[in-house]
Amino acid sequence: MPETIRRSESRYGNRPTMKDVAARAGVGLKTVSRVVNGEPGVTPETERRVQEAIEALGFRRNDSARVLRKGRTASIGLVLEDLADPFYGPLSRAVEEVARAHGALLINGSSAEDPDREQELALALCARRVDGLVVIPAGDDHRYLEPEIKAGVATVFVDRPAGKIDADVVLSDNFGGARDGVAHLIAHGHRRIGFIGDMPRIHTAAERLRGYRAAMEDADIPVRDSWTSLGVTDPARVRPAAEAMLSGPEPVTAIFAGNNRVTVTVIRVLAEQNRRVAFVGFDDLELADLLQPGVTVVAQDAAAIGRTAAERLFGQLDGNLVTPERIELPTRLITRGSGELPPAD
Amino acid sequence: MPETIRRSESRYGNRPTMKDVAARAGVGLKTVSRVVNGEPGVTPETERRVQEAIEALGFRRNDSARVLRKGRTASIGLVLEDLADPFYGPLSRAVEEVARAHGALLINGSSAEDPDREQELALALCARRVDGLVVIPAGDDHRYLEPEIKAGVATVFVDRPAGKIDADVVLSDNFGGARDGVAHLIAHGHRRIGFIGDMPRIHTAAERLRGYRAAMEDADIPVRDSWTSLGVTDPARVRPAAEAMLSGPEPVTAIFAGNNRVTVTVIRVLAEQNRRVAFVGFDDLELADLLQPGVTVVAQDAAAIGRTAAERLFGQLDGNLVTPERIELPTRLITRGSGELPPAD
Repeated sequence: MPETIRRSESRYGNRPTMKDVAARAGVGLKTVSRVVNGEPGVTPETERRVQEAIEALGFRRNDSARVLRKGRTASIGLVLEDLADPFYGPLSRAVEEVARAHGALLINGSSAEDPDREQELALALCARRVDGLVVIPAGDDHRYLEPEIKAGVATVFVDRPAGKIDADVVLSDNFGGARDGVAHLIAHGHRRIGFIGDMPRIHTAAERLRGYRAAMEDADIPVRDSWTSLGVTDPARVRPAAEAMLSGPEPVTAIFAGNNRVTVTVIRVLAEQNRRVAFVGFDDLELADLLQPGVTVVAQDAAAIGRTAAERLFGQLDGNLVTPERIELPTRLITRGSGELPPAD
Repeated sequence: MPETIRRSESRYGNRPTMKDVAARAGVGLKTVSRVVNGEPGVTPETERRVQEAIEALGFRRNDSARVLRKGRTASIGLVLEDLADPFYGPLSRAVEEVARAHGALLINGSSAEDPDREQELALALCARRVDGLVVIPAGDDHRYLEPEIKAGVATVFVDRPAGKIDADVVLSDNFGGARDGVAHLIAHGHRRIGFIGDMPRIHTAAERLRGYRAAMEDADIPVRDSWTSLGVTDPARVRPAAEAMLSGPEPVTAIFAGNNRVTVTVIRVLAEQNRRVAFVGFDDLELADLLQPGVTVVAQDAAAIGRTAAERLFGQLDGNLVTPERIELPTRLITRGSGELPPAD
């Protein structure tokens, strides 16, 4: 977990921050913020001290994300992974709403899970003078962003941590969520439980597999090789994987899906089966509650993730946040029927 | 429907186009395109004539969307209406794939159905030097784009036509699709059919309502005021609208939903009812086939719309397309059960 305070030095050079003003005036950061933003709740004497510190240090509020400057609208960029994945809909919208509240436009693009494309897109957005970047990383080396960060571009990673650089990251508790979902199936009597997930090089996929293994280990259930299948989320890969687990003399009695793209294919396969198989999926889906049985899921709060990330971004632009943090949001198990089915045999 | 050829004059000024080269060389446009792009199938004599015309006219192929120029990656912009509407997922991805095939990046933004925000975003993308814009319009006056179009920004509208300017538009047959869907309900014995749609100022909403009215009129069924309800697609508006139609001494026996946002709420309401109500929705939804009954829909081909629009855009950038066109793609009725239920009474 990143802990250094290097960023403020590298990004702003010798430019004084609100923190410097607060230290010189002998007041808290919030007090400086109130004075700078013209908010109430500061005595005239304190305000005078803060103003003196501001002048002495030559502090200038970073308004880049707030105002029209040289006729240019402030903007932030969002690098997505897949435009067609519904998980990113509410996430994007939440980022956009925060941007809007700060007077900035949001511009998006998609890496299509390709590290080169992620880099190309992120740098293209920087070349188009975004003030900050929210990145859902496809790659695992983000040193290419260091010159941009030094030049003042705020950066927050989402869903997966940054590679080889210190940066804010906002993500779900993927490990804990998957472990809880699998433990839920075990609690309903299942022992032969399959896991179908995304490519293992993707952080979320690896974490969710780790959660599956932890739950199985907690219940002293040795995991057979044939019970886990990782790879692309294309139906052409997921369908035979699910069918293979459901066949043979000892088929799985329950399946845990590593994300919503896997879920849509697995529940299609299960609907075609002539026997009962329990199911829990990571990520919620529209209409999942209306299926019969309703689909039990480990839900992420995509909107909260987007909102938190965007707020971190504008916090950086305001000069308030200097230490990169890892913010992990809890998941929520939503029981609707499919995950509460007992084993068929 | 726009038919003038003004665009080539206004956009490129006196710059010669492929069409001029073709006319001077006495060959077809495709032949010029082959020579310019170094494709086979042209005799040496014809190639010489085309090259002479190119030199005489000073024709220069517009490579802006293809190549790195001054270190800048070519890009096109996409102005969406709602980042969280799944209809735009495959549409965006299709636009992105065509952009990618042309060596250009796609950058997106959302108007959230606000005309001012659409304008702000479209102009912000132009200020960031996009080579072309695909716009899903929220507003009905796009004259603000005229200076950009004159400056050479290619422009294609999607889903709804441009207002007060001539421009390419790619959209579904909203009128015909809705008419077919409602006629399908009538063919299954329904006469009291409700229509719940989006705000009437939105082109697609108005066209689909027109399709509903046409089908009813074709069957000599007078439409009662209480059978139609238009407004925002928020569940808080759609739910009471559906419940009102389903109550009283003569409730509707079938409902047609104007788009997928309306559909998700109406099928929730229907699932809570203790009686059978037929349903057809405009736009398909993931999992709609797995509900019981399966949801009958009038499906648009969102990917084909995106692909067609993006190809028009790059056609404009290549100087091949000079006359704004309206391209209407057919919809497809997908019967899955809900639309084939007979009236309950």
